[in-house]
Amino acid sequence: MPYGYNGKILRVDLTNHKIEIEEPDELIYRRYLGGAGLGAYYLMKELKSGVDPLGPDNIMVFASSVIVGTGASGANRVCICAKSPLTEGWGATEASGWWSPELKSAGFDAIIVKGKAENPVYLWVHDGEAEIRDASSLWGQGTMEAQNMIRDELGDKRIRVAGIGPGGENLVRYACVINETKHACGRTGMGAVMGSKNLKAIACRGTKRMEMADPEKVKEIIREVRGNYKRTTGDINDLGTDGGLLYLNDSGFLPTRNFQDGSFEHAKAITGETMRDTILVDRGNCYGCMIACKREVEVKEGPYAGKVTPLYGGPEYETVAAFGSNCGIGDLSAIAYANQLCGYHSLDTIGTGTTIAFAMECYENGLITKEDTDGIDLRFGNAEAMVQMVEKIANRDGFGGVLAEGCYRAAQKIGKGAEKYAMHAKKQEFPMHMPRGKQSLSIGYAVSPTGACHCEATHDDDLSVAGSGAFPGYEALGIAEPSEKTDMNATKVKNFFETEKYWSAQDSLCICMINAAYMGPWPISKQMEYTSAVTGWEFSLHEYMKVGERMQNLARLFNIREGFTAADDKLPERMFEPIREGALKGVALDRNKWQDAIKLYYQMSGWDQDGVPNDGKLVELDIDWAKKLAAPDKMSFSSLGMGEAR
Amino acid sequence: MPYGYNGKILRVDLTNHKIEIEEPDELIYRRYLGGAGLGAYYLMKELKSGVDPLGPDNIMVFASSVIVGTGASGANRVCICAKSPLTEGWGATEASGWWSPELKSAGFDAIIVKGKAENPVYLWVHDGEAEIRDASSLWGQGTMEAQNMIRDELGDKRIRVAGIGPGGENLVRYACVINETKHACGRTGMGAVMGSKNLKAIACRGTKRMEMADPEKVKEIIREVRGNYKRTTGDINDLGTDGGLLYLNDSGFLPTRNFQDGSFEHAKAITGETMRDTILVDRGNCYGCMIACKREVEVKEGPYAGKVTPLYGGPEYETVAAFGSNCGIGDLSAIAYANQLCGYHSLDTIGTGTTIAFAMECYENGLITKEDTDGIDLRFGNAEAMVQMVEKIANRDGFGGVLAEGCYRAAQKIGKGAEKYAMHAKKQEFPMHMPRGKQSLSIGYAVSPTGACHCEATHDDDLSVAGSGAFPGYEALGIAEPSEKTDMNATKVKNFFETEKYWSAQDSLCICMINAAYMGPWPISKQMEYTSAVTGWEFSLHEYMKVGERMQNLARLFNIREGFTAADDKLPERMFEPIREGALKGVALDRNKWQDAIKLYYQMSGWDQDGVPNDGKLVELDIDWAKKLAAPDKMSFSSLGMGEAR
Repeated sequence: MPYGYNGKILRVDLTNHKIEIEEPDELIYRRYLGGAGLGAYYLMKELKSGVDPLGPDNIMVFASSVIVGTGASGANRVCICAKSPLTEGWGATEASGWWSPELKSAGFDAIIVKGKAENPVYLWVHDGEAEIRDASSLWGQGTMEAQNMIRDELGDKRIRVAGIGPGGENLVRYACVINETKHACGRTGMGAVMGSKNLKAIACRGTKRMEMADPEKVKEIIREVRGNYKRTTGDINDLGTDGGLLYLNDSGFLPTRNFQDGSFEHAKAITGETMRDTILVDRGNCYGCMIACKREVEVKEGPYAGKVTPLYGGPEYETVAAFGSNCGIGDLSAIAYANQLCGYHSLDTIGTGTTIAFAMECYENGLITKEDTDGIDLRFGNAEAMVQMVEKIANRDGFGGVLAEGCYRAAQKIGKGAEKYAMHAKKQEFPMHMPRGKQSLSIGYAVSPTGACHCEATHDDDLSVAGSGAFPGYEALGIAEPSEKTDMNATKVKNFFETEKYWSAQDSLCICMINAAYMGPWPISKQMEYTSAVTGWEFSLHEYMKVGERMQNLARLFNIREGFTAADDKLPERMFEPIREGALKGVALDRNKWQDAIKLYYQMSGWDQDGVPNDGKLVELDIDWAKKLAAPDKMSFSSLGMGEAR
Repeated sequence: MPYGYNGKILRVDLTNHKIEIEEPDELIYRRYLGGAGLGAYYLMKELKSGVDPLGPDNIMVFASSVIVGTGASGANRVCICAKSPLTEGWGATEASGWWSPELKSAGFDAIIVKGKAENPVYLWVHDGEAEIRDASSLWGQGTMEAQNMIRDELGDKRIRVAGIGPGGENLVRYACVINETKHACGRTGMGAVMGSKNLKAIACRGTKRMEMADPEKVKEIIREVRGNYKRTTGDINDLGTDGGLLYLNDSGFLPTRNFQDGSFEHAKAITGETMRDTILVDRGNCYGCMIACKREVEVKEGPYAGKVTPLYGGPEYETVAAFGSNCGIGDLSAIAYANQLCGYHSLDTIGTGTTIAFAMECYENGLITKEDTDGIDLRFGNAEAMVQMVEKIANRDGFGGVLAEGCYRAAQKIGKGAEKYAMHAKKQEFPMHMPRGKQSLSIGYAVSPTGACHCEATHDDDLSVAGSGAFPGYEALGIAEPSEKTDMNATKVKNFFETEKYWSAQDSLCICMINAAYMGPWPISKQMEYTSAVTGWEFSLHEYMKVGERMQNLARLFNIREGFTAADDKLPERMFEPIREGALKGVALDRNKWQDAIKLYYQMSGWDQDGVPNDGKLVELDIDWAKKLAAPDKMSFSSLGMGEAR
């Protein structure tokens, strides 16, 4: 089959008000697919080392992929990449929703934004064209309000908008980007980068039909995957991602009171079942999706009655645990309101929740007092205090300005040993999974190029293909042996390594992990067939895994260029201390085993003991040119023409 | 899809006349598939280090695979493995033909033979049963004669026999195993190992139908692949593998006069075209094969008239070049007769031809004289001398006994600097491809665990997927860039690395490379689908490439256990000196680049600079248990339970 994919990339220079269109070589699409891969490629090549992530020299990539918008369930993600203001390293964050397919319909696979607009602007992308427009009147508006104003201004209700609220404008370091009011590119502070560029939003509208190499085959696979819906656990439609909270709580994995405990006495009050039976008013889905895991909630009773609108969606599991158990709060309405505030302001619910939990522990231990917190009684369990603090963070109001910097920098500011309460890796706050329990995630939190990340690899160390295992979906990866969650061993490192490649490739193909990993309706082999049918390539899982590994290694090199070392692949001391309460009470990471696991992972990755990818690995992945940019002094074999762009 | 493959392995103890049947765990089939992979698994586990390869403690594995005998074109290979008497390291050699599918029909995936029979025996395997039978009357017979006697004795003409002739009985170090008189498991001296065990032959007959997970899908793919016949270059049916000789000659790649020259003035006399137009009487094929590349020849004129029977087949390209250009001989009839002698005696035509060419160069340079050669005028170009020498080698007659040890040991015996004429790697003779020209093969010759091997990886450094390239068949491997044949660079190392994994997996799946690599009718993705349909697994190319890499690493560990080091991954000095004649006159390997290429290959492989696989790579491949057997002192990370069988 001949190559068959052609696409366009939009380049926007906000400083010089310039717009260009580029048509990359097809090989770029084949090696990177889109999303995080494409972002890593462009940022590695074009971003200068050491730039201020909140200055005009940072570059943002908003990327879809070769399959986004082709109709398949889950083929709808956008990945936003830039140097992160939170980690000062590789920033990348994904969301599903409707924006990315609309970008494709508008004729583009990705947008690369550089410079900084003098005044607030938004970008209007439509059917092969683009325009930088004034956004002065939108500045200060919430994400939904801004979206509606843009639709009104342009006179088209079908326009899809991704943008920021006041939290992004105020450069909260973990500000996110929201599309369609409900879908958050949550992590690594990409909303702050938009804010720093005076870029309020990107609005897309397109009517272009996707060209596909084999449209009949595409339709056939879409039908077949729909037929696999039964494979998918029905619960995720019924209960959303929060449907797993009770299991996590009962198993001792639920982050509680800033990761001190692994279960929460009020867990039942915040489960997916409770949400369904109380505040849930509807379910929502993303483009093409047959699962529909999204929530829409409304609060009709109590202090938040009337304050929560379903238009801002409802809290995911991460949000529920971050504002709930991890802040010691068992009030679903307060959590839903905090979620809405984060949607309005474009704040990452994980970053916000974990930073507030950090502050609560500081407060309870007397490191800060009401004098520091502007009079707020910042105890674990105080829902009102939590909600107040979300607003203060978004507006950088008083103590909120300290917490808007993220838990790592807040701990530096507070001093008195506060860093021991800062649950972060590479300055990014922990997501809602307990690394002492899910021990493969303890590797992921430490080595992820974005800092602590729950989307780095499978969470399910006990995955198995041997018939009865929980995750037969991974059969094609050749993973055959489960590994006890709470024990570190070589098999666990291997399973992490393999699924990390797969998940990273997912972030490049821009397919939703609920659809493509877990018990989703997409067998792995079917995703390869689908990508082949869309592009005309004979695209294999071998190649796909290399796309993931390529992206991982580019991000690693990106961080090396910014000065990161192996010493940054670390976890807070608490992870090596026993869990205080719950089913896993007493369980801790074994320091010796854990360090061996990291070293084994380095070896498996083709990285030296300093965590620097060796030349062989990078030639294998066609990215030795990137090492020449990141660590030219660590290259060998110059006789072979190493490091030249190929 | 649940697991679906079950199979049986026959264990034969010749010393104790004991036969057992074993049913391996399905995971063994999934990780090794069969062939060289399965052989490496059992030999790594069961063979003791340092045993005499020609003593009773050596173990032989005769292996088919999960897809052999399921009807598809090319799914017909057998791989024979043991410690090699030629290299004293990893021995493995493949052939197509009819024997392997018959073994499957008889109910077995593989036979493991240990010990040594007191008197000559053969093994009779039929429909789930096996029997060790007396072979006294067969000893001394040619392979065809022995086959016919066995068929007569058992009263079934459909019996398929793999066995040895007098060359194997006489322990010629490069003796091979012949099945059906025409198909040679040629390399690493497996015929001598059979000889040392007094095992004349293994006869198979079965009527068992293969069970398959999805028989309809299997049929569908077989039909589809038949439809791809046009993909295949028609020449290979018309001209056989020798069809490429003229191209190689004209390009300067044709080994001539013991690899001194790259083209041969009498090349036209020995091409596939000349064979077709002179001595060819028929074409032959292997089980299920739609290509039919095999030759059948008959000599009707000249000194060999009446001596060459089509029943012993006809010479392949390797044979033509080994006895032809590389011995300076342009006489196709003499080559055909030498080929028949090797078939009768079970001698490897490559080992025999390259060793004779070595002796010819010694002779021409006065290192040996007629006194040494029993009066034979062993000049380049003397066809009669070459033919005489083949017979003397088979019978270890006079100077033949010296050459029966292979060119490396013969050079040691001759002394006087003869080693500079010994074209070998790891003591195995060079096949008929010029490493100074096809420079990726120069890596393959050096690093192959079996010693110099032309089946280690692609020969075609200028392969390309970009539409017009010669080998679009490799598209699924993600290889996108060709690399000039005669220049060493990083891309070439990568292309070698990737295709080496693929070819190694082929040796485990036991699918013929003419069908599955090159321009064969089998797209790579289709082979994975087929394997899935037969086994019921969701089997991916990712997993397949790991099967290949697993086998490679096991073989590497096998050699490490036998004392091999990085210093054994080397080539004769001649390779760094200019080619004397032909289109590539003056071309040599650049020593600096070549050494860098080997180091880069090590890095890519996850091997340290001593060529020892690191722990991470072996955990990734599920074979750290093997390193514990081969190099326990080089293991780390013991806290993670490394090296325990998993």
